[in-house]
Amino acid sequence: MTFTVAVAGASGYAGGETLRILADHPEIEIGALTAHSNAGSQLGLHQPHIRALADRVLLPTDVENLLGHDVVVLALPHGASGEIAAQLPDDVLVIDLGADHRLVDPQAWTDFYGTPHAGTWPYGLPELLRAGGAGTGELMKQRELLADARRIAVPGCNVTAVTLGLQPGIAAGLLSAHDLVAVLAVGYSGAGKTLKTHLLASEALGSAQPYAVGGSHRHIPEIEQNLRIAGAGEVTISFTPVLVPMSRGILATATARLAPGHEDIDLAELRQAWEQAYVSEPFVELLPAGQWPTTAMTAGANTALVQVAIDRRAGRVVTVTAIDNLVKGTAGGAVQSMNIALGLPQTLGLTAQGVAP
Amino acid sequence: MTFTVAVAGASGYAGGETLRILADHPEIEIGALTAHSNAGSQLGLHQPHIRALADRVLLPTDVENLLGHDVVVLALPHGASGEIAAQLPDDVLVIDLGADHRLVDPQAWTDFYGTPHAGTWPYGLPELLRAGGAGTGELMKQRELLADARRIAVPGCNVTAVTLGLQPGIAAGLLSAHDLVAVLAVGYSGAGKTLKTHLLASEALGSAQPYAVGGSHRHIPEIEQNLRIAGAGEVTISFTPVLVPMSRGILATATARLAPGHEDIDLAELRQAWEQAYVSEPFVELLPAGQWPTTAMTAGANTALVQVAIDRRAGRVVTVTAIDNLVKGTAGGAVQSMNIALGLPQTLGLTAQGVAP
Amino acid sequence: MTFTVAVAGASGYAGGETLRILADHPEIEIGALTAHSNAGSQLGLHQPHIRALADRVLLPTDVENLLGHDVVVLALPHGASGEIAAQLPDDVLVIDLGADHRLVDPQAWTDFYGTPHAGTWPYGLPELLRAGGAGTGELMKQRELLADARRIAVPGCNVTAVTLGLQPGIAAGLLSAHDLVAVLAVGYSGAGKTLKTHLLASEALGSAQPYAVGGSHRHIPEIEQNLRIAGAGEVTISFTPVLVPMSRGILATATARLAPGHEDIDLAELRQAWEQAYVSEPFVELLPAGQWPTTAMTAGANTALVQVAIDRRAGRVVTVTAIDNLVKGTAGGAVQSMNIALGLPQTLGLTAQGVAP
Amino acid sequence: MTFTVAVAGASGYAGGETLRILADHPEIEIGALTAHSNAGSQLGLHQPHIRALADRVLLPTDVENLLGHDVVVLALPHGASGEIAAQLPDDVLVIDLGADHRLVDPQAWTDFYGTPHAGTWPYGLPELLRAGGAGTGELMKQRELLADARRIAVPGCNVTAVTLGLQPGIAAGLLSAHDLVAVLAVGYSGAGKTLKTHLLASEALGSAQPYAVGGSHRHIPEIEQNLRIAGAGEVTISFTPVLVPMSRGILATATARLAPGHEDIDLAELRQAWEQAYVSEPFVELLPAGQWPTTAMTAGANTALVQVAIDRRAGRVVTVTAIDNLVKGTAGGAVQSMNIALGLPQTLGLTAQGVAP
Repeated sequence: MTFTVAVAGASGYAGGETLRILADHPEIEIGALTAHSNAGSQLGLHQPHIRALADRVLLPTDVENLLGHDVVVLALPHGASGEIAAQLPDDVLVIDLGADHRLVDPQAWTDFYGTPHAGTWPYGLPELLRAGGAGTGELMKQRELLADARRIAVPGCNVTAVTLGLQPGIAAGLLSAHDLVAVLAVGYSGAGKTLKTHLLASEALGSAQPYAVGGSHRHIPEIEQNLRIAGAGEVTISFTPVLVPMSRGILATATARLAPGHEDIDLAELRQAWEQAYVSEPFVELLPAGQWPTTAMTAGANTALVQVAIDRRAGRVVTVTAIDNLVKGTAGGAVQSMNIALGLPQTLGLTAQGVAP
Repeated sequence: MTFTVAVAGASGYAGGETLRILADHPEIEIGALTAHSNAGSQLGLHQPHIRALADRVLLPTDVENLLGHDVVVLALPHGASGEIAAQLPDDVLVIDLGADHRLVDPQAWTDFYGTPHAGTWPYGLPELLRAGGAGTGELMKQRELLADARRIAVPGCNVTAVTLGLQPGIAAGLLSAHDLVAVLAVGYSGAGKTLKTHLLASEALGSAQPYAVGGSHRHIPEIEQNLRIAGAGEVTISFTPVLVPMSRGILATATARLAPGHEDIDLAELRQAWEQAYVSEPFVELLPAGQWPTTAMTAGANTALVQVAIDRRAGRVVTVTAIDNLVKGTAGGAVQSMNIALGLPQTLGLTAQGVAP
Repeated sequence: MTFTVAVAGASGYAGGETLRILADHPEIEIGALTAHSNAGSQLGLHQPHIRALADRVLLPTDVENLLGHDVVVLALPHGASGEIAAQLPDDVLVIDLGADHRLVDPQAWTDFYGTPHAGTWPYGLPELLRAGGAGTGELMKQRELLADARRIAVPGCNVTAVTLGLQPGIAAGLLSAHDLVAVLAVGYSGAGKTLKTHLLASEALGSAQPYAVGGSHRHIPEIEQNLRIAGAGEVTISFTPVLVPMSRGILATATARLAPGHEDIDLAELRQAWEQAYVSEPFVELLPAGQWPTTAMTAGANTALVQVAIDRRAGRVVTVTAIDNLVKGTAGGAVQSMNIALGLPQTLGLTAQGVAP
Repeated sequence: MTFTVAVAGASGYAGGETLRILADHPEIEIGALTAHSNAGSQLGLHQPHIRALADRVLLPTDVENLLGHDVVVLALPHGASGEIAAQLPDDVLVIDLGADHRLVDPQAWTDFYGTPHAGTWPYGLPELLRAGGAGTGELMKQRELLADARRIAVPGCNVTAVTLGLQPGIAAGLLSAHDLVAVLAVGYSGAGKTLKTHLLASEALGSAQPYAVGGSHRHIPEIEQNLRIAGAGEVTISFTPVLVPMSRGILATATARLAPGHEDIDLAELRQAWEQAYVSEPFVELLPAGQWPTTAMTAGANTALVQVAIDRRAGRVVTVTAIDNLVKGTAGGAVQSMNIALGLPQTLGLTAQGVAP
C-alpha cells in the first residue's frame, strides 16, 4: 500500500534529506513540496542531488497545499510548525522535524526557546528506553507509543546521539545521571542553510569552533527529559558542541560516573546493558569491544554506533556515539518513525550501511 | 530470482563499495568474501560501515573460494585478476574492477602498465556511445554488448568522467578530438588504502596535489579508446589529475575545440547532442543550462552530471562532469553492468540521489 | 625608517591578510583601519587571529581617515577604489588590492566589469617578465617599474598563479600562447566573506564546485595582458576555476602547446627558461625535476612554486603552480611591492616558508 | 649574538616545524640536520615547504653529527632521546620535543610508557603556574626555572592546551581538580607521519575518530602533574581526544566543578583568575567575554586562546582552549623556551598572529 507524503520546508537541509530518503522509499509517493522564500522555483535548484525530483516546483507553505496527503512532514524553523499542525486533520500523520513538540515540560520550553509552548507529541525515537513503575525494573521502548501515532515529534540530532550513548547504563542503574559531561564534534549541516559568517567554508576549513558553551544549547532539556524517561532521577549535564570541518555527522563523547555500588563493575558486565538494550535494534549497535565508532561509518545511514569504556583513574564511563545528524539524527529517524506509525516495516527505505570512506 | 555474488578483495575500497551496494540489493545474496593479507579477520574490522556484513569472515583469495557463485567480482590490484579469471567457468559472470581487461590494444596496455596483456573483455560502461559504420551516423550504446555478457571490465573512474563529458559532442562531430585537455579534481579514495606519505590526512588537508602530470596516467589510453569508439579519429588528450581534500568524487573539466565548420554553433544546438545522448539514461544527465555539477550532488549515487559551455574567446567547449569515483566510477557502474548482464532492471539496488550536503 | 600604513577594508579577508603580515613587519607602523558596515567595532571581532591589533577600533572608510599615512592599502570591492584613490595625495603610496587599476585596455575592463575604467597603475607583480623591443630578446622585470611608484595595482590571485607558471616559456618563445588551457583548484577564501549559499561549509565540504566556466571570469583579460607583456603575440586561454575544500591556496594547471620549431625540445632545455627567469627571485621557484608543487607548501608564505612537464603524446607542456591566494596572490604580493616602492628590502616582513603540513 | 642549532629528526613533523620557525629566526644559524631512515636525502624532499633549507642534506642521527652546536633539538620517537642526550655536553642546550624527560614520577612514566624512566628535565611551559608553599598563596611561573636551563623537556601538545585552560582556576582555588573532564578536537599532524590506515586522508575526510578512549592516553599523567604544580591536591581527569578533519590544531574543551564555597561566583570574578594569570603573557590570552576560540585563530602562531563559561545547571565551569599543536603545542613552545634559556627575548622569531582564514 502506498502513502502520499507532503514536505513543508523542502528547500532546506532537513526537508531535503527527507526527500532524498523518500525518493527511493518503495511505499511512498511524494506529493506537494512547499517552501517559503523559494516557493515558485524548482527543487533541483536547491536540492540538485535529488535527481528524481529535480523538476518539481515548490509551492508556498500553507495549509491548503499540505492538505490531502496521508503524511505531512514539517521541516520548518522552530516555532513555525505549531500553527500549521493545528490546522491539519487528526487522521493525517504529521511529523515535525523541528523542536516545537518535543518537550513535555512547558517551562523547559519557555526557558530555552522563549516562546509559548505548542504542546507535546509522541516522541520519535523508537529506541528510547522507558523505565516502568518504581521498582518494577521493567523497560519498554518508545516504539510502542508510535504505532498508529498521528503526530510525531522527531528528536534533536545531538539529543539522539547523547541519549543512545548513555541510556542503557542509566536505565540499568549502572551510571549516575548527576554530573554528566558531553562534548560533541558536529558537522556543519546541523546549522542549516542560514547565511552566517562563521558558517562559511573559509571559516570552517582547518578549524574547530565551539558554540553554545556553558549550558545554553536548546538540546539540553530534551536530553534531560529522555534520560529521566530512561529511569534517571535528577539529571545534570554539561553539554558542549564543537563544529568541525565535515558536512555531516555527530561524534558524541558522553561520560558519566559509575553509580554508587557499581564502581568495580568490569567492562564485560557493563557492556551487557548496552547489548541488551540494542540487541534487537536494526539501527543501533554496540560495536565489538575495542572498536570505536567514527562518523564516516554512519554517513548517509540510519545507523547509530556506540562504544563504551571504563576509566578507572577517573571513575567514569566514557561512551562514544556516532550518527549522521541528517539521517538517524533527523530525516532517517523521521522515516523510521513514520514507517512504524503507518504499520510498515520500520526499516523500509532506510539503509544501515554508511557511505564510507 | 536471486543471484549469489562472491567478492575478491573485500577489504579494499572498491570491494567495500561493491558490498555496500550489494548489501541492500534485492536480488543478490552475498557469498564468499576474500582478501589477501586480511584473510581470517572479520569484514567489520576493515569495512565497519557495512553493518549488514560486519560478522563475515574473510577467506583467502583463491579460486576454490570463489567457485560456486553466479557472479564473481574481482577487486584486485592491477595485474592480479587475469590468472584467477582464467580459472573461473565461462558461465560465471566475472566482473573485473581492475584495469587488466579494459584495453583492446595490447600495445597500449604494455606501454602504460609494462606487463603482458591479459585480454579484452566487454567494457562495462553502458552509456558509452558506439559509432556505426563510416558515414552511417548511427549510434548504438555499449549497453547492448553487455546483455548476457559473462565477462565485464569495469572502466577506470577518471575515464568514466571524461568519456561521459566529451563523447556526445565527439559522436555528433561537433568537437575535435585533437588537443583535448582534461584536469580533474579527484578525491583520495581513488588512491585506495595504500599506505603512502602523500596520502596521509595531514598532507591532504588544506592542500591540492597533482600527480601523474605530463601524460603518464594509465587512464589515458582508455579515454582515447572510448572516444575513438564514439566516433573520433585520432585522439590526443592532455590529462592531469589533482588530489583535493575530499574522500570521494571526481570533477572533470574537459575541454575540446569546436570541430571545423561548427565554430559558430550556438549553445542550445550544442546542448542537443548531450540531451539526445542521455535523455533515456537513468544515471547520466545534462543539467539545465546554467547549473554546474558538483561532486557532492553525486556522492554515494550512481549518477553522472554533465554541463557544457562555449568559450568563444578561447574557441573551446568546456565540459564539466561530476561522479562519485567509487559508485558510478567503480562499484555502482559494476552493479549496473551486472544487472544488465543478468537480465535485471539496470537500476536495481542503485540510487540516483546523492548524499548531500 | 618606519612608515605608517592605513588599511581600508580591514574587516575583509584581503585587508585582514595585509594586517596579519604588517603586524610583524619591522618597518611598518599600523595607522588607521577602516571598514564599511563594520565601522565602530573592534578589529578583534572580525580578525580574531590578529592578536596584536585586536583592540583597534574600525573607522568609517573615508578619505579623512586615510589621510596622513605614508601608505594606504585599499582592500575594497571592485569599483570602489577609484574615487577614494583620486582624493589621496600623489606622494602617498596607494596600493589597490582590487581590480580597478590593473588593466591597461579600457575596453577589456568594460567588457568584463561593465563599468567605466578607473585608469591604469603600475602593476604589482615584481616577477612579471617584460619583453623588450621587437627582436631584441631582452627581458626586464616589472620590479623595475615599481621602484618609487606611488600607485600600485596588485594582481588578481589566479592571474599571479597562471602568469608565473606560463610566462618563462612564452617569453623564451618555447610555448605558443594560442590555445592555452588553465584549470585551477582554488580555496574558498578567494571568494571573500560574502554570504552566499554555495560558500557555506556544508556545501563546500566533500565537494568540488566549478564557477565562471566558459570564459566569463574577470581574471582572463589580465592573464592575457600579462602574457602579451611577456612577449606573446595573440593570447587565447580557456580558464576554469574549481572551488575545492580548502580555505587557502591555488593550484593552477596551465598547459600550452610547444611553439613551432620547438616540438622536440627536451625537458632539461625547457626547464632552463624557468630557471633563468626565477633564479634570482626570492619568492618564485622552479622545483627540482620530478617534484610537484602542492598548495600546502605555500600556505601563509609569499612563495610561488612551479613545475613543468612535457606531454609528447598530447604535444603540450603542462605547468603547475602553487600559491597562497591571500599571500603571494594578494597581501604578500602587495607587501613585497610596497617594500620595493619604499626602497626597503623586498623580502622584509615576508616569509618563504609555508605552514605545512 | 647568533646561536647554532642542530635538529635531530628533521624529516618528521615536529622537526620540520622547528625548522620552519628557526629558518626565519634572526639570532639562529641552522647547523646539522639529522634523520634516521631518510639520512642521505635532501630536506626539500621531506619538508618542501621550508624553501630556505630545501638543499640541505640530512645526516644520520648520531652524537657526532650533533656535537658542536649551541643548541640541539631532539625530535625523536619516545624513548630515543635519553641515550643521545646523555652523550651531549652539559653546556649544550638540549631541547627534547619527545616525552622522555617530562614526568617527575618514574612510576607514572613506567605505567604509561612501559619503559625505564630517562630522568626529569626542566619543563618547557613558561606559562605554567607554580603554587608556592602551603598557605602562601604566591604564584611563580615555570619561566623562572628556564633561564639558563641547559636541558628542556617540551610539553605534550594536548597537555599544553588542557593545562593553560584549567590552571588559573585551579591555582586560584576556584575549581575542583577532582573529576575533570576534557574532550579534545585534534588535527592529524599530531599523529606524525606514521603510515597507518586510519590516518589516511580517505579515512579522515568527512569523519571524526576518537582514540585512546577510557584513560589510556599518555598525556594524562602529565596533565595531572601540571595541575598539581599549579596547586591542585589530587587530580582526576577523564581525557578523550577526537581526530577531526584538519591538519593542525587542538580545541580542548575542559570542564571542572566549581570548588566548594565558590558555587555562586559570578563570571566577571571567575574571569579575573585567568586575566591575572595571563595579563603579561605575550602568547596566552583570555578572549573578551562572549568570544570563543577556534583553532584557525592560532594556526601557525605560538598563541593559546582561552575562554571560560559557568554552567549553573551543570555546576561546572567550561574552559575552551585553542592552540596550534605544532607551534605552541610543540615547536613554537620549544623556541620560546629556547629563547628564554639563551637570554633572548622570548618572542623572538615567533608570531602571535594566526594564519586565518
